[in-house]
Parts: sequence; structure tokens; C-alpha cells
Amino acid sequence: YINSERLQSWLTDFAKIGGTPKGGVNRLTLTDLDKQARDWFVVLAKKAGCSIKIDAMGNIFARRSGEDDSLNPILIGSHIDSQPLGGKYDGIYGVLAALEAVYSLNDHKIKTDRPIDIVSWTNEEGSRFAPAMIGSAVFSGLTSLQEGWACTDISGKTIGEELKRIGYAGKDNFLSYRIHASLELHIEQGPILENNNELIGIVTGALGQKWYDVEFIGMALHAGTTPMDVRQDALIGLAEAVIEINTIGKNEYPDGRATVGMVKNTPNSRNVISDKALFSVEFRHPSQEGLDRMDQQLSKKIKQIAEKLNLKFNITPILSLSPLHFDDTCIEVVRQVSQKLNYPHRTMVSGAGHDSCNISKIAPTSMIFIPCVKGVSHNEEEEIKPEWMSAGANVLLNAVIDLSKR
Amino acid sequence: YINSERLQSWLTDFAKIGGTPKGGVNRLTLTDLDKQARDWFVVLAKKAGCSIKIDAMGNIFARRSGEDDSLNPILIGSHIDSQPLGGKYDGIYGVLAALEAVYSLNDHKIKTDRPIDIVSWTNEEGSRFAPAMIGSAVFSGLTSLQEGWACTDISGKTIGEELKRIGYAGKDNFLSYRIHASLELHIEQGPILENNNELIGIVTGALGQKWYDVEFIGMALHAGTTPMDVRQDALIGLAEAVIEINTIGKNEYPDGRATVGMVKNTPNSRNVISDKALFSVEFRHPSQEGLDRMDQQLSKKIKQIAEKLNLKFNITPILSLSPLHFDDTCIEVVRQVSQKLNYPHRTMVSGAGHDSCNISKIAPTSMIFIPCVKGVSHNEEEEIKPEWMSAGANVLLNAVIDLSKR
Ligand SMILES: NC(=O)NCCC(=O)O
Ligand SMILES: NC(=O)NCCC(=O)O
Repeated sequence: YINSERLQSWLTDFAKIGGTPKGGVNRLTLTDLDKQARDWFVVLAKKAGCSIKIDAMGNIFARRSGEDDSLNPILIGSHIDSQPLGGKYDGIYGVLAALEAVYSLNDHKIKTDRPIDIVSWTNEEGSRFAPAMIGSAVFSGLTSLQEGWACTDISGKTIGEELKRIGYAGKDNFLSYRIHASLELHIEQGPILENNNELIGIVTGALGQKWYDVEFIGMALHAGTTPMDVRQDALIGLAEAVIEINTIGKNEYPDGRATVGMVKNTPNSRNVISDKALFSVEFRHPSQEGLDRMDQQLSKKIKQIAEKLNLKFNITPILSLSPLHFDDTCIEVVRQVSQKLNYPHRTMVSGAGHDSCNISKIAPTSMIFIPCVKGVSHNEEEEIKPEWMSAGANVLLNAVIDLSKR
Repeated sequence: YINSERLQSWLTDFAKIGGTPKGGVNRLTLTDLDKQARDWFVVLAKKAGCSIKIDAMGNIFARRSGEDDSLNPILIGSHIDSQPLGGKYDGIYGVLAALEAVYSLNDHKIKTDRPIDIVSWTNEEGSRFAPAMIGSAVFSGLTSLQEGWACTDISGKTIGEELKRIGYAGKDNFLSYRIHASLELHIEQGPILENNNELIGIVTGALGQKWYDVEFIGMALHAGTTPMDVRQDALIGLAEAVIEINTIGKNEYPDGRATVGMVKNTPNSRNVISDKALFSVEFRHPSQEGLDRMDQQLSKKIKQIAEKLNLKFNITPILSLSPLHFDDTCIEVVRQVSQKLNYPHRTMVSGAGHDSCNISKIAPTSMIFIPCVKGVSHNEEEEIKPEWMSAGANVLLNAVIDLSKR
């Protein structure tokens, strides 16, 4: 078993790095706060005897040696970055539980056959820099390093620049590094486990995703002097699109999702008709056909709206992930361990994307979920119970020991 | 007649203070650029022999003495501030044409009976600080100085602080100062004069206005894990409201106007459902009954949307101006001068609000419009023709001479 007090105290301490008045965390990727949390993670990992490597995307790997370091490692971990008004468990819980697993192995003087790499991925959230999960995407060879470095935040700064600025543009090259198995522990971010009084989610796969930027372009004119019938109001285009996109999601109920989360209006002045309305769109679906259907609907509706309102438009793809199934062996190990530890559990599909989705393309991978209160996540009020925290970390610890023997 | 070259060269020079790549101006109220333009206006006015006074709202008054300085003055001028992506004539044309009128009087060695005050009002645009026209509102006693100072921009800075910062928190008290007549020259900001090949608009009044802030409050949740049917998405509320508000405007065609120009979404992250969507609403109408009808529709629709989507809401009034009729004598003087100068003209109502609307509550007031190309304003592409520029300034000059004799 892991040491729950230690894990809890780390969680409490990391929650202070970017802590918000309402008990959440604002620790956007590659900010000074992210650097502070990274630095401290490195200190804690070194204390456990780990050696540190950092790749060109700023992904951090802390290795605990095994009996035979020529064997491919077990990879465990998650991400340190947060949403702008996010919770104190999303991501960081998986990183600190992985660290706790290594501390526990040290405490119990257990040496695994294989080395263990604790990983913290760069820019999982996709909030400051889109797309999400770009650190693991570059690591997995799904995206080029050039593309990764070029991702730009709303103020024009790139991931490449910001990595250098905070000192996490590493030189270690992991593209040739082979992983025996990869596990990520995370909060569910949905209500299913809690509603069913279950402690562990055995994650068998994840919804596919498609993200876009859509922009309507109209004409800025004086709101007081311009009659209603001659306007080309880009914000009306946005409004109609938001409603259509919501309908696209509802038509794919219960597992399809459609969300506009980000908007940027120009010139955004009270008495000026909008000439540019930019917004994000994201679709999620368990099937590729479902995603394609949503994609087609989007193009059709945006075109119709633009024609009706006499606007121009652009649709830019930002992220595309197929629905995926994790590795059956990894899934089975998590199931067996949950059973052995007597934790009520269920198999489930993740609605959220995770770095594990990318890693699953290059290594046997699965995930472990614990409940979060009322399914609330990407919200400062995100909360977990101590027994959930311990259960997840115990499953991780035991699954790592099991996988290392295989 | 005025000196067109001089006026044109001033316009060209002031357009550089905050000039944008697309030929517009970004010179928001009480920014460093606004200060720079104010400073230079003061220099030019002093060169013409004017004495300068500045009141507690930063309104600038440059006085040219008359034969009898105990007589109430003629007030002419407009505003120096601009929209964030505004044009190079809106406001500043009226200020510089007033300056040109004084320079011309000097050139022609004409001494008017009454003193002439050239005025530049603070925060006409209402873009950085809402409401618009607050400088003239405080001057006219329609709003308290406390309220004026307390207006806050999006970053939390107040008009009071910013006036001090740029050195324009004046000590001169004008509340007891009586105006014989007030004239403001401005571009039309609409297409009517150009479409009818007319040079001069004799402005008889202005549409009434009501401005609001509306906010929907929902719940921030993960966009990937939260099914469509349990969401409380504040941005959907905004979208439905934008469409309803547009319909409210269309139902009052042709003279009613309804616009959402500014939006602010929280947390504004791609994969987070919006928990707060704030937006501005403004209505304009020639009749008070029309405005009241729009106001009632707004309350009703916002309430309906909030109930349907399970959101909370707030509606905050920001500005309320009744439809108004300018002073018949001032209107008549502008008509006579236009006729005398042989400029094609028409009487018209202003769709835009102007400081003159506030001044008309305390002094005989009217306005002079010139065309602007295609009616485009509050846009970097705002443009006028040299002959329009001269015509407007000539009407102003001659109307001032006439009014000073009355
Ligand atoms: N787990 C998580 O919140 N990931 C961010 C990417 C996504 O929105 O799915
Ligand atoms: N003239 C002008 O653009 N005034 C700003 C206030 C308004 O929107 O009417």
C-alpha cells in the first residue's frame, strides 16, 4: 500500500502553486507557476533517487532503476499544467501518485525488474496552447517537433519560446525509446463512478475528438447609425453557430459532445457592429462515423449561416483524434489488481482526452480512473475524497509491480 | 472661408497619434496617446491666443476672447478619443474644425461679440469606459462627478485615476458657466447624405438610447465528460440572447437599432463549458415608447432564456438617453448658413449619440453633419472627401459668427 498522508500532503502543497481563492488552480502550461511546480517535482523525484531527463517538448522523465535497466521501462504519470480556472487534482494527481508509487517501492525496499519512468507531459490541457496533449503527441511521433514548438498562445508566444524562457527546452531525445507498458491514473472528470459507488474505473478507451477554430468576418459599422437590414454582424453568425453546434451535439446523445468554449470578438466595443467573431468548436464521439457526421454538419451549417448573414468564414482544424481502444493486457492487469484489492470497479470509456491516447499509439497503454465529486472538473470546485485518492494510487502501485514482471 | 490646407494638415497629423496600419486610429480615452493628442491640441489653441481651462472630468476648454467677455460664450468642438479600431475623423474633425474656425477668425481679423470656447470632451466613445459621453454628462450636471470618476475599464482602472495619471484632472469648475449657444460639427457616420449627394446635414435631434450589461451564469464543467443534457452553458444563453436582441431591433425597423457589440466569456477555454457569459446590449429608437418596448422585450427574453437553459442572469442598466430635439434657433442658423453658402443640405436625426445631446439639456444646441464615405464609421476605413471637410468647417465658421451676434 502507498503512504496516503505523504500523497495528500504533496497534493495540498502543489495546490498552492497557482492556487485560486475558490480552492482551484490556475497553472497554465509554461507559465512561471508551471515552472515552479515542475522544479519541485524534479526535486522530489531526485530525492527518491530518480535520474531526470527532459526532452525538446519539455516532457519530464524521472527514472527509478530496475533490476535490469536494459529492459524497456514501465511509464507512469500524467500532467502538471491546469486549466485557467481548473481543479487541484486534474493531472497533478496522476503525477504525484506515480511519485508516491516510487516512494512506496523505496519504503518497502522493492526493486522491480524493469525501470520505472515517472512522466509529466507538457501542455495536456490545450487551454493556453491548442491543441491539447501536444507534448505526448510529439513524443509519440504523431506531431512534428516543429509543429509542437510553433503552437501559439493568445498573446502570440510560442511553446518553443516559452520552453526556453522557463528552462525546460531539454536536449534528451526519446524518439527511439521503447516502452514496455504505460499507465495513467486520473480523476474521472465525470459522474459515473460516484453515482455507482465505485472506486476504480478501468478505462478501456476514449472518445474520438475533433477540434476547430471557426471565424466569421463581417463589417465593423456604427451601431447607432447602421439600420438593421444592411448589417454584416459577425457576432450574429457566432450566435447562430453556437446554437447549431449545440444541436449537433444533442443529435448524438448520449455519447456525442459538442462544445463552443472559447470566443473572441472584434473590435468588441459596445457601439460597434462586430466584424470578426472567432470561436473554438470541439466534437467528441465514441465512433468515427459519428465524428464524421458531426464534422459534415459543421461545414454545412457554417456555410449556410455565412450565406444567410452575408459573412465570410474560415474553418481551421486544430485537433483530430480517432476513438480508441487501450491495450487488453494493461486493461486486464488493472482489472485484476482492483479485484485483488477489493475495490468496487467498472470498465468505462473516457470522455476526456489524455496523453495516454497518444502513447497508446506507440506502447501498450491503459488508464485508471477514480471518482470526483459530482463529476465536476475543469472547475475550481473539483474535489476528491481521501479514500478515492488512496485507492487509485494503490491500484497504480500494484499494477506497476505486476506489469514489471511480464 | 476657412483654410482647407491647414485643417487638412492637422487632420493628417492627428491621425498619426494612434494611427493603425489600416489607416484608422486607436486612441482610447485617457491613454498615453489620448494625452499626446490633448497636449498638442492645447499647444495649437494657445498659438491662436486662446486661454485654456480644464475641468475635473478632463474636458478641455480653449477660449478666444470676444468684444465683451462678460457675455456668455459660443461653445464649439467635439472629442479627441476614438474607438479601439476607429476612424481618423470621428470626433477629432469637430475639434480641429473648431480650432480652424478660430484660426480663420484671427486670419480675417474678425472679433466676435461673444467669446468662443473650443471644447474637447472626455470619453465620448464609451468604448474604454462606459457609458459614452460621460465628460459632457458630468459637465451638464446629468451625472455626478463621483459617478464619472468611478467609471472603470476592463482592467479595473477608473476615469479618476487615469485623469490624474495623464495630468488632465483639472481644477476649473464649470458648473456655473452659462452657454449662449453650442454647435458640434461631426461626420454623419451613416450613408444618407452621400447617397443623396448632399454636403450638409442639419441635425434636428438624436435617437434615444438604452445601454445594458447582461450576464448569464451557468456551471463550468469538462466539455468531454459532460453529457449534453446536464449542461448549464452560459454561452448558449448568450447566443440565444444575441439572436433575440437582433430580432427586437428588426421589429423596430427602420429607425430602431439593437446591437450586442461586446462579449466576455469565462473561463474561455476550448474544452470547458462556459460558466459566465457577459455581453453589452444597446437599443436606439426615435420614440420613448419604442425604447420602452425594446426594454420590456429584453427583460422578458433574457428571463425566458435563463429559465429554459437553467442559468442565472443579471441585467445592469448602463446608459439611458431620451430621444431629443435640438434648439430651433440653432437649427435655423445652420440651415440659413448652408443655404447662403449654397451647400446642398437636408435636415436629419442623428443615430449616434453625441456630447451635444447632453449639452442640449443646459444650453441651446444643434449639430452639423458632413457625409462620410459609404456611411462607414467606427471602422479603420472611415473616410471623407476634402470638399466635405471644407464645407462643414465653413458652415461652422459662419454659424458661429451669426450666433455670436444674437
Ligand atoms: N483530461 C483532460 O481534461 N484533458 C484535456 C483534453 C480534453 O479536453 O480532453
Ligand atoms: N458619435 C459616436 O460615435 N458616439 C459614440 C456614442 C454612440 O454610440 O452613439
